[in-house]
Amino acid sequence: MNTNLELLRELMRTKGVDAVIIPGTDPHQSEYVSDHWKFRDWVSGFTGSNGTAVVTLNKASLWTDSRYFLQAEIELEGSGFELQKVEYRGDLAMIMTWLSREIHEDDTLAIDGSLFSLMEANRLEQLCGENGFLLATDFYPAEQIWENRPARPMSPAFIHPVEYAGEDVESKLGRTMQKVEESGADSILITALDEIAWLLNLRGSDVDFTPVVIAYFYMSNKDRVLFIDSNKVDSEVESYLSKYRVRVKDYDEIEKFLDKRNVNDIIMLDPNKVSDTLGQALECDKVYGASPVEALKAIKNEVQIEGYRHAMERDGAALVRLFMWIEQNAASGTINEIDVWERGKLERGKNDLYRGDSFEMIAGYREHGAIVHYTASAESASTLQGEGLLLVDSGAQYLDGTTDITRTITLGNPTEQEKHDFTLVLKGHLALSRAKFPVGTTGVQLDVLARMPLWQETMTYGHGTGHGMGHFLGCHEGPHSIRTSLNPVALEPGMVTSNEPGLYKTGEYGIRTENILLVVEGKKTEDFGDFLEFETLTLFPYDTRLIDVAMLTQEEIKQVNDYHSVVLERLTPYLNDEEQAWLKNKCSSI
Amino acid sequence: MNTNLELLRELMRTKGVDAVIIPGTDPHQSEYVSDHWKFRDWVSGFTGSNGTAVVTLNKASLWTDSRYFLQAEIELEGSGFELQKVEYRGDLAMIMTWLSREIHEDDTLAIDGSLFSLMEANRLEQLCGENGFLLATDFYPAEQIWENRPARPMSPAFIHPVEYAGEDVESKLGRTMQKVEESGADSILITALDEIAWLLNLRGSDVDFTPVVIAYFYMSNKDRVLFIDSNKVDSEVESYLSKYRVRVKDYDEIEKFLDKRNVNDIIMLDPNKVSDTLGQALECDKVYGASPVEALKAIKNEVQIEGYRHAMERDGAALVRLFMWIEQNAASGTINEIDVWERGKLERGKNDLYRGDSFEMIAGYREHGAIVHYTASAESASTLQGEGLLLVDSGAQYLDGTTDITRTITLGNPTEQEKHDFTLVLKGHLALSRAKFPVGTTGVQLDVLARMPLWQETMTYGHGTGHGMGHFLGCHEGPHSIRTSLNPVALEPGMVTSNEPGLYKTGEYGIRTENILLVVEGKKTEDFGDFLEFETLTLFPYDTRLIDVAMLTQEEIKQVNDYHSVVLERLTPYLNDEEQAWLKNKCSSI
Repeated sequence: MNTNLELLRELMRTKGVDAVIIPGTDPHQSEYVSDHWKFRDWVSGFTGSNGTAVVTLNKASLWTDSRYFLQAEIELEGSGFELQKVEYRGDLAMIMTWLSREIHEDDTLAIDGSLFSLMEANRLEQLCGENGFLLATDFYPAEQIWENRPARPMSPAFIHPVEYAGEDVESKLGRTMQKVEESGADSILITALDEIAWLLNLRGSDVDFTPVVIAYFYMSNKDRVLFIDSNKVDSEVESYLSKYRVRVKDYDEIEKFLDKRNVNDIIMLDPNKVSDTLGQALECDKVYGASPVEALKAIKNEVQIEGYRHAMERDGAALVRLFMWIEQNAASGTINEIDVWERGKLERGKNDLYRGDSFEMIAGYREHGAIVHYTASAESASTLQGEGLLLVDSGAQYLDGTTDITRTITLGNPTEQEKHDFTLVLKGHLALSRAKFPVGTTGVQLDVLARMPLWQETMTYGHGTGHGMGHFLGCHEGPHSIRTSLNPVALEPGMVTSNEPGLYKTGEYGIRTENILLVVEGKKTEDFGDFLEFETLTLFPYDTRLIDVAMLTQEEIKQVNDYHSVVLERLTPYLNDEEQAWLKNKCSSI
Repeated sequence: MNTNLELLRELMRTKGVDAVIIPGTDPHQSEYVSDHWKFRDWVSGFTGSNGTAVVTLNKASLWTDSRYFLQAEIELEGSGFELQKVEYRGDLAMIMTWLSREIHEDDTLAIDGSLFSLMEANRLEQLCGENGFLLATDFYPAEQIWENRPARPMSPAFIHPVEYAGEDVESKLGRTMQKVEESGADSILITALDEIAWLLNLRGSDVDFTPVVIAYFYMSNKDRVLFIDSNKVDSEVESYLSKYRVRVKDYDEIEKFLDKRNVNDIIMLDPNKVSDTLGQALECDKVYGASPVEALKAIKNEVQIEGYRHAMERDGAALVRLFMWIEQNAASGTINEIDVWERGKLERGKNDLYRGDSFEMIAGYREHGAIVHYTASAESASTLQGEGLLLVDSGAQYLDGTTDITRTITLGNPTEQEKHDFTLVLKGHLALSRAKFPVGTTGVQLDVLARMPLWQETMTYGHGTGHGMGHFLGCHEGPHSIRTSLNPVALEPGMVTSNEPGLYKTGEYGIRTENILLVVEGKKTEDFGDFLEFETLTLFPYDTRLIDVAMLTQEEIKQVNDYHSVVLERLTPYLNDEEQAWLKNKCSSI
């Protein structure tokens, strides 16, 4: 019996609500949200980063993607929620099809409009119209029934020095306003936390893993206003902001402020990011378009790129210590998956520029590796042994860059099947890494390079191949991607992307190999145009014990050996003698 | 001095027209048009299948894609037209940017609305609005200034027997009406000639290369009307049509008929296919959507597939005779590119089911091979010699199927560079042919497989990798494609597609290797879903003298040898002893 669910239903009955959709996000459409906004988790028990709860008076369902199927099955047990499997993004059309069987014409579907983007609310309204449902966007159950709801986080904002950011705030604001004016607007409302952080070179610790501060930002040629809890702004930040003529107003004043926008204003909004509640508060003319900040932010400058390179060296060195420790202790049966996670934080934490992990480390031993976004708990954590596969997906936030790396290693006696599967995944990973491609190429065109070795054996993976990554910011960012969906954004020099094919055999093991790549200029040709290619930023060896060398081409063998030479050369200065010897062995030629 | 262009300008001055856009299509948005509608050719001299002329009182430009750059340069010389290079499809936005520099606000841009789809006219109206131009859609210069304009073609319509078509007309009409009703409409207007031909199992010879008859078709649950010149319909076709309750009205009555549609009708239109003129004639409610016929037609039935297999056998045998003849005569310097074309028609024409070529054969020797859509003229035709590369792209219309194949052969002494380039193209072609892919995969995801060997050496080709193909119908058809554009249509079992990577070295040679593939069901897996793969329909050997075997993997070598075994086995029954010996040699293992 799920008492939280029953409390929600009681409120629904009181308010005449027949169904409610509860997304897993916050008013900023964040991927990782602070505890204050984890109402979906509170109601359903599901803690994954992507999942939508749908509750009627009789039924409850939780919609998530393949990364979380196994986790959801465990977490939802006994919750009264049934798991609904969807593609990567929660599909409102599928949810509405389900709802159309559960509720009736003229019934009321309610949402908290602050948790839905304008686009989503618009789509929902359309779908409600088709089904004859009434849509109420002002249902705020978290405020009414969530006892002991965690407060809004109150960590102080801090400045991300330009020596790491590489571009002054005035320049960023100016470039953004230029794009705003090109779109025909004269002002812009920015609600995505990573965009505000990038734009103002301002960071915080309000959210796990992503160093952002909860805020809204409004800018016109005459005015710049940051909406933020005032006690997060100390005198240093205050004078820093005033240097850029940024006024500070209280976070909760945003709606009142927007409500007063002059009807002559033309404000630019990203309908995929601005919430329905804020969008509705604006009476003035609007220009809808993809946020210009997202596109500007995605192209890293030389300082950021150099920062990544240093961060990857220190990160790689920390991983040498972590994986050495794992190897030394696994066979004794004395460490488990959580210990790996703790040790990872410990090793990375020794670095001065470390500011926390960039996401919750996945350390999945044997069958846990097949759970794509597995999080070990004290009860579930497996104790490592001297054999079997261990998948470790981890990353860190450093002041000079963010990291995200996955390695799969054997703890001993790899089977032929494990080696075969590992090598298939590696072949795809290598193919994408060495790709050269004409200017204008989009991620969907390249995605198959990472999948083809698996496809040829009629296997695949359910997640994307590559996501953009922030610089001391969100571990996942757009606007580009390398996946099967038809994202029209072309890859450009200065963008970074992960390269992470995988293979998951439920009940047996999971394999994923992930590096971060930088898009760089390649050869310029007279007859065939200009080409781009990738520079690999991540520095850590692949586990060569898992490579079936007979499955590799000469080109692939050379690629692995060349990469390992670079890894050895770049990491050695950070290591003691024992660590150097260990790495040298790991990097020896295949 | 281009007198036709001056005649057009005289008319423009009389009518107060400042600019005119003349596409290369007909009122049915056909790719190949009958001479009656070749007004763009008449004005500009350019004869390619894709090209748009834009004329102002002072300037004239012709917009075409990379396939035609070289051809256009030759044909436009002295015409007063300057070549404008664009991507695959004529981009109205680029044309308008050009026009915005040539004409002024409040100037009039005029078009013949019957030659623009509703979508294009809509886009044009929007762009005119942004630039302050007036748009007139009723400018018909061809009717006024084109002396000795060819008459509308008057070839008789004929029945495509169900023993080849594989599905009865009643079934096709029923399946189409079901889709129409699912879209919320109660009737449909079909203007694409190949859709009408497929739907009624009716063919004609009104257009070169595509066995269609010029017509419109309207259908509701109560009425079925074919608009066609009445003297094309003999008594057999008339009674055939009446069997399916299809009324026949004169081709020119379409507008009057549409004008009278009851305002209560809801008619389905494909805005990319129905002309602006016809769309505007309809006062009733409209449902805009991709034509259901295009999607139904793309999935070939078992009879059609078996027909293709037989057609490919006979086509391959004809090609054996053609290429034998080329080999026997090239070194003597007595045959040229046009002779190759004639000989190809002769060999294919010996077959009872042959009904003409499916497009104008390209026989490009040496540097002519680098002109992607080269057509030899009496003046330009090169005489073949005992060395150098010859590219032959050709296809035929048989009652039981359409073919389209490209082979590049050496006439002797291939250079290392030629072999290297040929092998790169072949590697891409082979990779796409052997691809396995999950259900739901789109063409843009697979396109890179054919390009990657070239991309890795920073080369590429400017055309698509694969187009759909009709069955005794258009050589190019949708809705699917394998190219870099983000076409959302997934590949499905029963679709056919070409696989034709190429490499073009201006002034030197062109290489293209093309087979037709059929999408078939592959392995169904429990963990990774259902897979699809390709069956190669085309049957003719690759020129192994051009293969640098050292560049191939064992898998690729086996793929070539396996394919050649099939080719030998399937074509042998159609060949005499000498031909068999020739083919056996061509198919020997590499």
